[in-house]
Amino acid sequence: MPPSQKALVPFVSVENMMRLVHAIGIETMLAELTDAIEADFVRWALFDKTPRVASHSRDGVIELMPTSDGETYSFKYVNGHPKNMGSGLQTVTAFGLLADVSTGYPVLITEMTLLTALRTAATSAMAARHLAPRDARVLALIGNGAQAEFQALAMKAVNGIDTVRLYDIDPRATEKTRRNLKNSGLRLIVCRSAEEAVEGADIITTCTADKQRATILSDNMVGAGVHINAIGGDCPGKTELHPDVLLRADTFVEYPPQTRVEGEIQQMPADYPVTELWKVIAGEAPGRREAGQITLFDSVGFAVEDFSALAYVRARLKDTGLCAMLDMIADPDDPRDLFGMLQRAQ
Amino acid sequence: MPPSQKALVPFVSVENMMRLVHAIGIETMLAELTDAIEADFVRWALFDKTPRVASHSRDGVIELMPTSDGETYSFKYVNGHPKNMGSGLQTVTAFGLLADVSTGYPVLITEMTLLTALRTAATSAMAARHLAPRDARVLALIGNGAQAEFQALAMKAVNGIDTVRLYDIDPRATEKTRRNLKNSGLRLIVCRSAEEAVEGADIITTCTADKQRATILSDNMVGAGVHINAIGGDCPGKTELHPDVLLRADTFVEYPPQTRVEGEIQQMPADYPVTELWKVIAGEAPGRREAGQITLFDSVGFAVEDFSALAYVRARLKDTGLCAMLDMIADPDDPRDLFGMLQRAQ
Repeated sequence: MPPSQKALVPFVSVENMMRLVHAIGIETMLAELTDAIEADFVRWALFDKTPRVASHSRDGVIELMPTSDGETYSFKYVNGHPKNMGSGLQTVTAFGLLADVSTGYPVLITEMTLLTALRTAATSAMAARHLAPRDARVLALIGNGAQAEFQALAMKAVNGIDTVRLYDIDPRATEKTRRNLKNSGLRLIVCRSAEEAVEGADIITTCTADKQRATILSDNMVGAGVHINAIGGDCPGKTELHPDVLLRADTFVEYPPQTRVEGEIQQMPADYPVTELWKVIAGEAPGRREAGQITLFDSVGFAVEDFSALAYVRARLKDTGLCAMLDMIADPDDPRDLFGMLQRAQ
Repeated sequence: MPPSQKALVPFVSVENMMRLVHAIGIETMLAELTDAIEADFVRWALFDKTPRVASHSRDGVIELMPTSDGETYSFKYVNGHPKNMGSGLQTVTAFGLLADVSTGYPVLITEMTLLTALRTAATSAMAARHLAPRDARVLALIGNGAQAEFQALAMKAVNGIDTVRLYDIDPRATEKTRRNLKNSGLRLIVCRSAEEAVEGADIITTCTADKQRATILSDNMVGAGVHINAIGGDCPGKTELHPDVLLRADTFVEYPPQTRVEGEIQQMPADYPVTELWKVIAGEAPGRREAGQITLFDSVGFAVEDFSALAYVRARLKDTGLCAMLDMIADPDDPRDLFGMLQRAQ
């Protein structure tokens, strides 16, 4: 007997996620994701918020990131293992789930390695929309790993960036990024140092991967009026900015209890002032106030962004056929008769 | 191009889990699961322990239950929605995952609705092996829902129970349980009240489902020397025993910080004495000390039990072919070239 419809959960494989991205168009998808995340940041207060649940080990971290808006529940499983790259594995892999709060039944399971790269780029673009200098055109992209092209294309699609200055300690990473973006319409400038990369940049995005305290940006590299997206510092002991940069910048964060532990501001005292990004987006706090101001989005990634991305995929998936149905939920005819179902399967 | 092996995660569907149970034999599997959980309780100190992460709503709860022994990580997604039964859905559904701590890559995803019923029964049997009176033969099973038959068979396979006295407020549930167990070799006695069910019982198992304070067992129903497995009280505001029972019993729990919030002992002051069950199993604390003692296993279900069950399934799955391979992990040839993989898929 085939499993009933209630037993089946739509599953989006990596293959199908790639098909979905191409069906929509990557820049369109990044722009739509930016709007989807922004819409959920406006209703921030509705979400059940909790810092991610992390399991740390010598080589990395495995995290669960749950949230709910009262109608739909989501969580993401995500790891971060910097050494994986050395053995040909992804540093970050992820999958996620949406469930119906009223029944607890899963309604979507999807790969999220790609989707996380997309939503992280969309979140950067959303922050830049409210914090970057007007008429920003030049992006410095320091760290040219797995996230780099997504970050560049989101800034192009959403923020009007037309030039990207690339730097990575490994020139092969920069070359990979340049090659991948050569037909994107972006002007690409390969730089030999971080100092060179930030020259003339309106927006600086740092997305390096080492699990350690690093100084990707020192104070003298950050000019007046710049907006910084700090993506790579996202767990305890992992930062990218010199603390002096934080002293000059106005800092915006997703969820302070999480960012104070995981973000760049882990280097600062507990009373270091921050503004919650959702307040800027909802019009409850100012974003960029003046041209000379240095703004910093200390991004660590928050569960609400995954919620938005999952809900977006679920909506966009309709009628595409780009999912398989997993027989994941035991569904006996009489819900109390789980054992009878098992017995009859013999 | 087909996804590489690294991209694939073995997935055990409900259908395949049922096949695995029948291939092993349900009583054999319950006995082996009991031993597997017991072996992990002995090395309890190794596990990364945290109370489950619960998202409560009006109709129920969705929980994530992670743990790790330093080499392998596991989590379970599980819901509890008592009203689901009314709409033909399961009160409790679950799925789980194992991952490699050193890389963060998932190595198993499986349905856990059936597996949770099996591991919960095995955990009861493990507790009874250390706490029930010697030569216990008679089990009173109050609450004859989805868990009932699993509980009865584990007590038969592991603890030598030969008689089960059944009671549920809904006689159809009892009839279902009687019918399912009629060829099990157990002597089955249908009772018209909880009072009748506990007559002459050596072990009393309560597994009712209402999300509320209930008094399934009052003080006068519990005779000297009895062992009680309280399964159904497992979230805040949901209990099955009158507090007077707790005053007479010696109470054993899985993980005190979780049980004090979710278990029967949520009715008692914070200093109500409990013994951690793992200490009994590891020989660090006494279990049953005397014939007249009332012992209570205030079971709420803990992540280590799911870990044991998942690891058992993974080991038993080998060479059975009872899984599908999910293309869940994005696996570009160059780990930094996630975008290139996406681009080439076009």
